[in-house]
This record gives sequence, C-alpha cells and structure tokens, in this order.
Amino acid sequence: MTYKTPVRDMQFILDHMAGFDAVRQTGAWDDLGPELVTAVLEEVGKLADNVLAPLNQAADEKGASLKDGVVTLPPEFREAYSQYTEGGWGSLAFPEEYGGQDLPQTLALCVSDALFGACIGLSMGFCLTTGAVKALLAHGTEEQKKLYLEKMVSGEWAGTMNLSEPQAGSDLSVIRTKAEPAGDGRYRIKGNKVWISYGEHDLTENICHLVLARLPDAPEGTRGISMFLVPKYHVNEDGSLGERNDVRCTGIEHKLGQHLSPTCQLAFGDNEECYGTLVGKENEGLKNMFVMMNAARIDVGMQAVSVAEHAFQSALAYAQDRTQGRAFGVKSGPQVAIIQHPDVRRQLYTMKALTDASRAICYANMVAHDVAHHSPDLETARLAKEREELLTPVSKGFSSERAIESTSLGIQVFGGMGYVEETGAAQHLRDVRICAIYEGTNGIQAIDLIGRKLGMGGGKLAYDFIAEVKDNADALMASGTGDLEAIGQQLKAEAERLEAVTRWMVEAGGRGKAEDALAGASAYLDQFGYVAGGHYLGKGALVAAGLEEGDRAYHAARIAIARFYADNLLPRAGACATAAMAGEQTVREIDPALLAG
Amino acid sequence: MTYKTPVRDMQFILDHMAGFDAVRQTGAWDDLGPELVTAVLEEVGKLADNVLAPLNQAADEKGASLKDGVVTLPPEFREAYSQYTEGGWGSLAFPEEYGGQDLPQTLALCVSDALFGACIGLSMGFCLTTGAVKALLAHGTEEQKKLYLEKMVSGEWAGTMNLSEPQAGSDLSVIRTKAEPAGDGRYRIKGNKVWISYGEHDLTENICHLVLARLPDAPEGTRGISMFLVPKYHVNEDGSLGERNDVRCTGIEHKLGQHLSPTCQLAFGDNEECYGTLVGKENEGLKNMFVMMNAARIDVGMQAVSVAEHAFQSALAYAQDRTQGRAFGVKSGPQVAIIQHPDVRRQLYTMKALTDASRAICYANMVAHDVAHHSPDLETARLAKEREELLTPVSKGFSSERAIESTSLGIQVFGGMGYVEETGAAQHLRDVRICAIYEGTNGIQAIDLIGRKLGMGGGKLAYDFIAEVKDNADALMASGTGDLEAIGQQLKAEAERLEAVTRWMVEAGGRGKAEDALAGASAYLDQFGYVAGGHYLGKGALVAAGLEEGDRAYHAARIAIARFYADNLLPRAGACATAAMAGEQTVREIDPALLAG
Repeated sequence: MTYKTPVRDMQFILDHMAGFDAVRQTGAWDDLGPELVTAVLEEVGKLADNVLAPLNQAADEKGASLKDGVVTLPPEFREAYSQYTEGGWGSLAFPEEYGGQDLPQTLALCVSDALFGACIGLSMGFCLTTGAVKALLAHGTEEQKKLYLEKMVSGEWAGTMNLSEPQAGSDLSVIRTKAEPAGDGRYRIKGNKVWISYGEHDLTENICHLVLARLPDAPEGTRGISMFLVPKYHVNEDGSLGERNDVRCTGIEHKLGQHLSPTCQLAFGDNEECYGTLVGKENEGLKNMFVMMNAARIDVGMQAVSVAEHAFQSALAYAQDRTQGRAFGVKSGPQVAIIQHPDVRRQLYTMKALTDASRAICYANMVAHDVAHHSPDLETARLAKEREELLTPVSKGFSSERAIESTSLGIQVFGGMGYVEETGAAQHLRDVRICAIYEGTNGIQAIDLIGRKLGMGGGKLAYDFIAEVKDNADALMASGTGDLEAIGQQLKAEAERLEAVTRWMVEAGGRGKAEDALAGASAYLDQFGYVAGGHYLGKGALVAAGLEEGDRAYHAARIAIARFYADNLLPRAGACATAAMAGEQTVREIDPALLAG
Repeated sequence: MTYKTPVRDMQFILDHMAGFDAVRQTGAWDDLGPELVTAVLEEVGKLADNVLAPLNQAADEKGASLKDGVVTLPPEFREAYSQYTEGGWGSLAFPEEYGGQDLPQTLALCVSDALFGACIGLSMGFCLTTGAVKALLAHGTEEQKKLYLEKMVSGEWAGTMNLSEPQAGSDLSVIRTKAEPAGDGRYRIKGNKVWISYGEHDLTENICHLVLARLPDAPEGTRGISMFLVPKYHVNEDGSLGERNDVRCTGIEHKLGQHLSPTCQLAFGDNEECYGTLVGKENEGLKNMFVMMNAARIDVGMQAVSVAEHAFQSALAYAQDRTQGRAFGVKSGPQVAIIQHPDVRRQLYTMKALTDASRAICYANMVAHDVAHHSPDLETARLAKEREELLTPVSKGFSSERAIESTSLGIQVFGGMGYVEETGAAQHLRDVRICAIYEGTNGIQAIDLIGRKLGMGGGKLAYDFIAEVKDNADALMASGTGDLEAIGQQLKAEAERLEAVTRWMVEAGGRGKAEDALAGASAYLDQFGYVAGGHYLGKGALVAAGLEEGDRAYHAARIAIARFYADNLLPRAGACATAAMAGEQTVREIDPALLAG
C-alpha cells in the first residue's frame, strides 16, 4: 500500500505544537532552521517511501528465520539496511568524534518517525543500536568507546538490550544471569535472556549486546545488577573482529506481528566461554539502563504513531477509491466514494486526530529532552528535564493505546477487505499491538506516572503542565473564532478536571491509600494523554488561524482536526477521570472462581 | 488454553438480567424451568469444553485449504461436526415437523454462546445453516421444505447466505448476479459472489446456498432482487443426491483470523448449468433475506461476546498463575501472582464487565424476539417486536466493539506472552475482529439505529427503553446499600443524558440535518450500548442483593462487577454523548490531500 512520509505535518507539528524553537534557542546548534529540517525530512522520506515502504508487506509475509542458531532476514532487507547505514541515518544525533552528525535527538526522532512508518519490522531494530550507543556514550570506558562506538554509530555493527529473563519481565529485580570476574578484567557471563529484539540477525557483521547480570555476592534485588558489553564477536585491539563469543540464539518467537524483527531467546555461556566487559559501575546497571530505557520509551510511542500514520494513509486512499452506496436521501445514480459517508469520515478523522495528537506528545517529549541536555540556562534545563520525565510514560502509554485504536479503525475503513491480509490493513494492527507491551507495559507506564512522576514535588510536574494547558485554552477562547473558542472551552474544562484528579492522585498516598491511586493509574494516564493531545492540537490550531502566509486550506485542515478532537475525543478525558478516582474498591478482590462463571 | 462454558453466569444473566421469564410467560412452551435450562447448558457445555475448545488453536494453525475447487478442513473438525449434529444442537429451536426440538430461540442462542466461545472458527458455520433454515421456513415452497429442511435441521446438509459481490458489499442494491427462467420452473443462475462464509467445505455432503440475484427485467436497486435456493448437489424427488450443480469455489480468503472458516469466492453458472429455485416472491429477496439477517446480527454480537469470554477465562487463569513483582511497598520476599496487582485486576474486571454487559444485551434481544413471535397477547408481542428491533444493532455493534477491546486487553494481561501466538491470546483478537464488519459493518448498524429504529414512532422505541432504565435506576437508588445506590446514580444520570441525545437525534431529521445524525450515529450506538449494559448489570446486581438463598459470595461478585462497570465504563457514555451531538461540522469535508500530510 501507499506510504508517504508526512513531511508537511511533521514539520507543522514540530514547529507549531511541539515547540521545536526551544531547541533552537538553546544555542547549542548553529543552524536548525526550517530549511535544514525540511531537507532532512525530505531526504529520509526518499529512503522511507521508496526503499522501506515497498518492503513492508514482505517483512510480514517472509519474516525472519532461525536455523542452527543463525537468524536470517530476506536479502532485500540487508540491501535496505545498507542504504540506511550509507545514508548515515543512525548517526544523526551522535558526536562527530564517533562519526556522528551532532544534531538534536528531536530531529533523530522525526527521522525515526519516517522510517518506523515505512517499515516498522526493520526500523524498530535501528533504535536498539542507537539505544546501545547512548548507553556506551554515557557509561562506557574509553576503551569500549574506542573499540565499538564508531562502528555502532555508523550502523556497521548493531546493538541490543538484554534485560528480561523468563522469570523477570516487568520485575527486573529477580534477574539471575551471572557475571564472574575472569581474572583478566573481563567477566564470564552465564544465563538466559528472552524477548531480545534483533538479538541475532545477519544485517551486520557484529552485534553488541548490553546485558544485565549479577556479580558474585551482589546485593539482592535491583541494586545488585550490573551492565556488561557482550559482543557476538570479540573485537581485537586494532578494531578487527576476533573469535566468536559464546552467545547463541536458541529460539525466536512466533509473534502476532513484526515478523521481520527476530525476537530472540539468547543463551550466554552455555559452554562457559562467554566473555563481556563491565559498562558503568558495579551494581548500577539497572539505573544506567533506565536512562537509556526512557529514550527507548519515547521511541516506542513514536513507533506506534508512525504505524498508525501508515494505517491512516492506507485507509484514506482506500476511502477515496472504493465506491459504495449513495449520499443520504439519494436513491439512484452512481455509487460514491465511501469518504463521502459521514461515518467513514468520522473514522478517518479519528485516526488522523489521534495520530497527530500522539505525534505532538512524542515530539514535545524529545524537545524537552534536548533542551534539558543542552540549555545553558540551568533553570530552563531543569524545567525541561521535569517535562521530559512527565511526558515519557504518556508518550509511550497513550500513543500505543491510541495506535491500537487507529489501526483497528483502519481495518474497519477497509470493511471486509480489511480482514484479508492482502490489503495490509490488518498488518498494522498486528505490528503495533506490541507497543503497548514492550519497554514496560502500559500498566507499568501508568504506575510510573502516578508514582514516580507525580511524586516529584507533590505533583508539581503535572501542575506546571496543566497551567500551560489552561493558558493555551484561555488564548483559544479569546481568539474570537467559533472553532477555536469551542476547542478552548472543551480544553479548559478538561484541564481543570485533570487538575482535580491530579490532586486526588497526589493525595492518595497521604491518605495511606496508595492502592487507590494504583487502581486508577491507567485511567489517569489516558486522561492525561487526552488532555495533552488536545493541548497540542489546540496550539497548532491557534497558530494556523494566525498565520498570514502559507497554505490557507492546509491551515483550515489543521483547525478542523483540532476541532474534531475537541468534540469527539477530548470528552473521553472526562470518562477517564471518573474511573481514575474510583479507588481500590473498584477492583476489589474476589475469589477468581466466582469470576470464572 | 482453558475454556469452560460459563453455565452459572449464562443462567444468571438469562434469568436475572435478560428477563427470560417473559419467554416462559408466553405459555408457548410447557416446560422452560431452570432445570431444563441447566440441563441444556451443561450438556452443550460438554461438547464445547471437551470437544470444540481443545481444537481451537488447531483451527487457527491448520485452517481450511482449497485445492482444485475443493475446500478441506482438517479431519478432526469433521469429527467434531458430527458430534454437533449427533447431539442435535442445530435443531434446538426448529419445528418438530422437521426433526427439531421446538425450543425458544433464546435457548438456541445460549447454546451458540457456549459453542462460539469454545471454537468460533468451526461454530460460526453453524449459524449459516440455521439462518438458511429460518429463511426456508419463512419463505420456502412446500416442496423446498419437504426436500431440504429435515436434512438442514439435522445438520446433515449445510446452508449459506450469498449476498455480497465485489461491487456490492454494504450496498446490496447493485447486485448483478442473474437468474433466468429455465422453462421448467427452475432458474439459471449466473454470477460471482464473495465473502461467502462456509461457501464450500467437506463437513457435509450437500450445501444449500441461498443466493440473491436479479430476474430479467427486474426493477433496479433493492426492489429487483430475488432469493434462490441453489444446492451444491441437486436433490432428487426421493431426497437422494443428484448431479453436481455448477457452483464452484474459485478462491478462499487469507484472513487475519477465523482461519478454519472458509471465506469463499463462489462462481455460479460459469458453464451455464447452474440451476436454482425461487424462494419467496419475485423481487422480495432482499426484504426476506433481511428478516434472516436480523437474527444473524444477534448471532454476530453473540459470537463476539463468546470469544471475549474465552479470552477472559484465559487471561484470568494466566493472571492467577504468572508471578511477577510484589505488592505496593513490599521490597522483598516471593513474587506474587499478577492478579494481585490492582492494574491487572482492572484489566480483568474490564473484560468481565464488558462481556457480561454485552451478553445480557444479546440475550435480552433474543428474549424479545421469542416473545414477539410467541406471546398470545398482541400488545405484548408488538412491544417485544419493537424491543427486538431496537436492540439488534446494539447487540451487533456494541458487543463487537467491546469484544475487540476485551480481547486486546486479554493480550495485555499476558504481557509479552500475549504477543506470541502459542498462548492463544492473540488469536482471540484476530478471530473476533471480523464481528465489527460482517453482517453489516458497525457503521451500518449505527445508521440503522439512528435512522430506521429511532424513526419508528419518533424515537418511541428508545424512549420506552430509557424509561425502563430510569425505573431500574430508581430502584437501585432506593435500595439503601452503597454499591447499588452508586450504580443507580450513575445509571440515572446516563439514562437522562441518553434521553436528551435521543431527542437531539430524532429532531435532527426535522431540522433538515440528517447529516448531523449520521455524523454522530456511531457515537450514539456506543452511548446506547453503554447505558443498556449498565442497565442489565444493574438489574442483575439488584436481584443478587435481594436473593436470600444461593451462593452469597457469587452474588457479591455480581454486585462488584456491576459496580466496576458503573464507575469505570458507564461514564464513557457521557463522552459518547458529546461526540454524538457534534453534528456534521465535526466531520466537515476537507480535500483529502490536506489530510495526507
């Protein structure tokens, strides 16, 4: 099916909703003008639209295969991967010192947005490598950096994250993989890991695994976990490849979607000859991994948005092409394109509004990340860091939930054709479904939001955000045009309601009833997401209404999307609010046998 | 995975929510006591639990295959099918004259509920045959009945419905298949049909297709369509099988789910030797088919509920078994079963409450059908007919949307394991996704609800229902217990809001703005469904609270589920209300190129 990188939308959302100017204003980059952004997006769009997107259905149909411990992808994906590395797309936001281009992470996220949308099965693998690069940049030794970073930044070598074990999924405190000093500064790694995305493949000549494991006599729980770099092939001092390390793929999962992406079971040191080196300090592995996981969570939210974008574009094209029925009250004459039917338009608007709202949240999240890391003003940096922390679980949780809804609507627009695999509509739902699960289930995200994030400064992070939303709502209401006023009113009401629920959540701990907050955590995350989405779409509508130049019709579309969201989707925040405050009694414990019917 | 027919829930919902007593009170049956119902459900439960459920994953993995025009199911399904026919399960609600058992359709629906839940891929085929039986009973000639009905009632022969063609899906007015008089009282059928569930298979020795086609010189549009009986094998006068008829399977669809169910492309009369006989009057085929389709729509709603039930039971079992993490604030010690976590319980409660609410709507729908057809009191019958009409699009549309949500939550409870196919969790989502599409997409259901159903008596059908909901809410509020009062208050508020939105919908036509209603139709159907679900769960809770005898713990569970729904799910009706009244401007037409980004 058709896919085209939505450059115009991406740029509008980046500039007028997500506030990319704040990144420019850090002064950390000489030139981040719109021309540069356009050039980057259009260039990556060529790779996405012309190389990756045409392979998306093959990714699903052919998938990865495992034989004798070797994972193989169909050859066309090795070719596509080499075009990705040749374009330097993985190196965008890394230091020039290691061959990178030193651009903002936000721009790298936009690039990922294009690539994820074109072919998630291949491009989800890219962020494993960039994630590993980030971890090594932050915590690697000079030698590790020297030996590994340049080739990982270029994409010549790949990286992975090895956290989960069969008994340790959401709860990593019970990791059992062991690391014993080998006496030569290295460690012998022994254990089994599961759910390792791109844990083994033939895209690159080496794969650099970051592995969580326990040192002998390490403390129990999360504070006894260290991080190790365990390459598939050892690296000689001159940077050339040495012997094969004893890390083996023992199985790949047969999954609902993302068939190209090999989800591996890895065995480390089955023959006691697996060696790795320590990354960061002893027993700080989980803490260090989490820094990287926060970026990964934004990536997952972005993946969800991008796949939903692809689903939307396919559905939109189909709705313009497929004729069926006539307009209301018309009894004869030719059939009309189904986009003429209000209910079909409702479905398309829903997909579009949810996707753009989620995209704006993810972009704003990464803008905050860049500002936090690069603003010379400490207070600006601190506030941005808070915003990054607040939005991360929302980017991941809200975007993935809404993408499931959008891709399912995509099937619905296709009608019966949506249920047959040939159209590709169903693949989007299958591919995106994992985004609600990996990098911490959405339940974990919700607990992070109401626990750790609302816990910072007694809800300050959320109150600051809500204050901005209310200001934005006031500006919309003061604008004097019907659409903007209506958007502003809905937004103001929901912002105030969110403030009240936030207070209830913050105070739940004080009442000694943390379980009340836990029971409503997911509903609160959804509520927060709906309000945030309305906020960003509203910002975009306000800007669109004020723009003198440019494409007026396009600006009218931006307003229509924001208005649709305010009327049709933002009200869901109210329903979430009731659920969020229902308290522990709402999920009271019952003998499961009584529920089983 | 585990599946057990939820006999206790089914009986509780049937008696205390769906009002099965009204069927008993028609006096049309001598014995419909609880013992009979229990006996039927427990007996079908044996077939469902022990024979069908163990085959459910094989249905997905093996599926149907087509070779040289012959569709084959794996042999274990032919064996299971013969157990279904030997038990006489397809004959339950048909006349004794044709070998049936003359029981209410409601009871047949409960039986379907058990079978759908166990293995939807096989059992969805059962209702094609019963649907065809209904059509022949209502419109067949004496000869057709004599030759066909007994063997179709027993299940020895199967039946199908042939409506769609490539250009005629939601809009059947443009059907092109032709029927020409052959001069011997028969008709030559020529044309191509698509989406024919169980259109070809090897479960039975004959398949009796009901086919919509046009006579020569028939009027254009829906009033020029006639119905024909086109058997795979002609039937001799003595009832034995004659020659093969020229109806051939030219393809089966490669679908997201329901892999066992062959979705066929059928070619009629490619060699001009396909003969059929007229069913009902000329040019009344679509009208007659629709009578049958209404029953089929309830069946589809039921299918969705039943698959969601299976998904719920699997998720519940997994959540009791899988250990991960600890209770809030507990830092060490063994991991707990994930059902101990409030957020996981929230997911399970959501699945359970949505499934039971939908089940009650479907059951109540069929109760109304039985009363409409069997009450000796004309006014009672008339009101029941109205209720049946009103609830049918809700049974189909609401149940299927909520089942998509429930089965997706089922994946979420399993975490990463939910994304691998081996656990079976993903299959439920894939299998159920079609329920929102076939037998009229949910958009079509919504238009039926706000158009035809609200159009009857200026909204009378809905107002009558809402009056009952308000009475029920009053009774709940007057009950004096915390849970019931809370449920009653939520229900009363949402009933009043539904009344207001209904008025807005009814008056939209009067304002000359039918498009306003069309734009909000789907949101209105959802709103209606949420309120109806809350109504039935509330009725059940009220009964449970008042029951002196029986299992008190079970009754407490019924109340807890209703309370959960009132707090967490019923509020969504409010969000739907805003969307329902947003009007045509909410889906204003935009140049699609502006939406494409």
